[in-house]
Amino acid sequence: MTNRTLKIGVVGLGRAFTLMLPTFVHDSRVKLVGATDPIAAARAQFEKDFGAPGYESMEALCANPAVEVLYIASPHQFHAAHVCLAASHGKHVMVEKPMALTVHECTRMIEATRRAGVHLIVGHSHSFNTPIRRTREIIDSGRYGAVRMINALNFTDFLYRPRRPEELDTQAGGGVIHSQATHQMDIVRLLGGGLVNSVRAHTGSWDAARPTEGAYSALLGFEGGAFASATYSGYGHYDSDELMDNIGEMGQAKDPDDYGAARKRLQNAATSTEESALKAARNYGGSLYVPGTALPQNLAHQHFGQIIVNCEKADLRPGATGIAIYTDSQKVIETLPAPVIPRREVIDELFATVVKDRPAVHSGEWARATTAVCLALLQSARTGSACRPRHQVSHNAGS
Amino acid sequence: MTNRTLKIGVVGLGRAFTLMLPTFVHDSRVKLVGATDPIAAARAQFEKDFGAPGYESMEALCANPAVEVLYIASPHQFHAAHVCLAASHGKHVMVEKPMALTVHECTRMIEATRRAGVHLIVGHSHSFNTPIRRTREIIDSGRYGAVRMINALNFTDFLYRPRRPEELDTQAGGGVIHSQATHQMDIVRLLGGGLVNSVRAHTGSWDAARPTEGAYSALLGFEGGAFASATYSGYGHYDSDELMDNIGEMGQAKDPDDYGAARKRLQNAATSTEESALKAARNYGGSLYVPGTALPQNLAHQHFGQIIVNCEKADLRPGATGIAIYTDSQKVIETLPAPVIPRREVIDELFATVVKDRPAVHSGEWARATTAVCLALLQSARTGSACRPRHQVSHNAGS
Repeated sequence: MTNRTLKIGVVGLGRAFTLMLPTFVHDSRVKLVGATDPIAAARAQFEKDFGAPGYESMEALCANPAVEVLYIASPHQFHAAHVCLAASHGKHVMVEKPMALTVHECTRMIEATRRAGVHLIVGHSHSFNTPIRRTREIIDSGRYGAVRMINALNFTDFLYRPRRPEELDTQAGGGVIHSQATHQMDIVRLLGGGLVNSVRAHTGSWDAARPTEGAYSALLGFEGGAFASATYSGYGHYDSDELMDNIGEMGQAKDPDDYGAARKRLQNAATSTEESALKAARNYGGSLYVPGTALPQNLAHQHFGQIIVNCEKADLRPGATGIAIYTDSQKVIETLPAPVIPRREVIDELFATVVKDRPAVHSGEWARATTAVCLALLQSARTGSACRPRHQVSHNAGS
Repeated sequence: MTNRTLKIGVVGLGRAFTLMLPTFVHDSRVKLVGATDPIAAARAQFEKDFGAPGYESMEALCANPAVEVLYIASPHQFHAAHVCLAASHGKHVMVEKPMALTVHECTRMIEATRRAGVHLIVGHSHSFNTPIRRTREIIDSGRYGAVRMINALNFTDFLYRPRRPEELDTQAGGGVIHSQATHQMDIVRLLGGGLVNSVRAHTGSWDAARPTEGAYSALLGFEGGAFASATYSGYGHYDSDELMDNIGEMGQAKDPDDYGAARKRLQNAATSTEESALKAARNYGGSLYVPGTALPQNLAHQHFGQIIVNCEKADLRPGATGIAIYTDSQKVIETLPAPVIPRREVIDELFATVVKDRPAVHSGEWARATTAVCLALLQSARTGSACRPRHQVSHNAGS
């Protein structure tokens, strides 16, 4: 069993793949055996790096019998079709967040994979991160009583990173609700138990040149009475990594001299075509892509901003290097070992599910519930009313 | 004009007065000329400290013609009656927050003072603090565009400080909505412009032995589209002064060794009678009261937790020693001079209003609007619906 290697085909060699690359390269439990992407340079880079075929079509990749799992990292709006296609070829699926753009699409994806008898995992999302999972374990220990309230805060420069036009169009899957609330709601749901029964929210679309939601504040109610408050801004001034010991989302030490870098870089792109090109250039195989297969050093754990969990008998604050536990009588830091391979947690779950047939935490049903919460957030902001998201599942539904 | 001294009579020598004492003692623009309190020891301490009479009844204090202004710091539930009584004697009024327990009471207080032709100011509240007022000035400068979003967070040990029974009874004015949301909503309203048009909230009452709200998360919508998220916990584990450079609410440096002090101290009080006695003992004239008229040294500005204001072109983060301004291109700290006398801002406003007849920011109308928001918060948490608070006024309505 220890030598079992999962053979993965990659659908989409863009940004999401680039961020997963160190994991795929360094975790010996997986091997990339093929890929598809519309960009020839990305395919060429893949063939060079992995000695495996880069296909022009997903169908051709699916036809490769060596592929056991398809990692679907295409643009959001294609996730549903690509998952269904993968399932029809009998491939297990790991699809990037957001799972899809509608609950109906999520249901189609769940049904297609179930019908095909293949596993479906949704991720990476930051609820995979060890500090979050460990916080969940601490809650599950019962030592500090039930969760009462959760507070989540994240301020980034998300909206000023180079984007393709569709990423600035909410209908097409753009904006921070589809891209970023997915992380934050997944974390908050995992820590709150999963069963959200009300969502109330404001969203902000404040830059006419980038006409999608760039910020939100939401209130979530949970079955059992716990509640959460979650705020996100992608407008790129204040950086809440200040609250995380200046460790960035990817676990990297941040350099204060990089202040405002996203906006500065974006000034070099006068048109949306130039901006798309700028994004492509930095991605895998692009002209600005720096090939690097060395294991990243000195990383802390990845995170998605400040999270504070009030339990009956303690408050828990997961950080990038450990979890601060504030009990009645003392503050204790539970230090976590530094990650050896970033996002190894994703492979842990994929491997356990596909190879050992264990239930996934980040199943299709789980991710559909998160999608429903994100869509309820958009709807509440639009209507001014509370929304009850459908299809909610408990964090331990699978176990 | 420079030698003009306001002669103040004090109604209630309890906790609120104790916190205002350094200001009254050291600001030469005011002089305490009388006081009333039901506790003889407090009256005796006052007579000793100020060489001025301590009365058993408020009527007797009102009958003293030397008194120009009554500072009303009686328990919350008496504010309305005491303000009306003061007005009927032609005294100007400064009443502690919360202004009152109902909007109707607030209206009575406004009408009584207006009829009597006397000024009404509500405070201290933490929206008087220089960093908050300076942040409002920065917003008003227009340099960074309109306010879009505000985030407020404060975690304290409020619920475990010694209390009288009524302070743990929401109906009687107890709990964190009446006592603490007043501060936070006043700050958020001041920075957001004042005109709240929707309030949605969850509250938490998690300790059966202290059966009142100890925590909340609220979403506020403002006229014009800005919104705010505000979270408070008084359950005393995590202390958000960590986010404020370990400077406490009163501007004091906090000692990490004091972790959990409130809960520890409270264990010495087995009954509510003992707890009330513990509270009284620490108050002015009590057996544990340490007379101290020396000017407190090395204080930073007072604060009420973390506040982040997103403007169009910058984020503003008022702290205890200055304001962090995050623009498109840089982070700038606008350092504020340390306060010479704590809460001097309260006397600034009182003096300007009563002596120079300038409109008060913290007028009765302003504070009624804050009371309406706090009550809307309670109502929204109870009903699950959004509430539109009445009587909202703009932050510059008076100017």
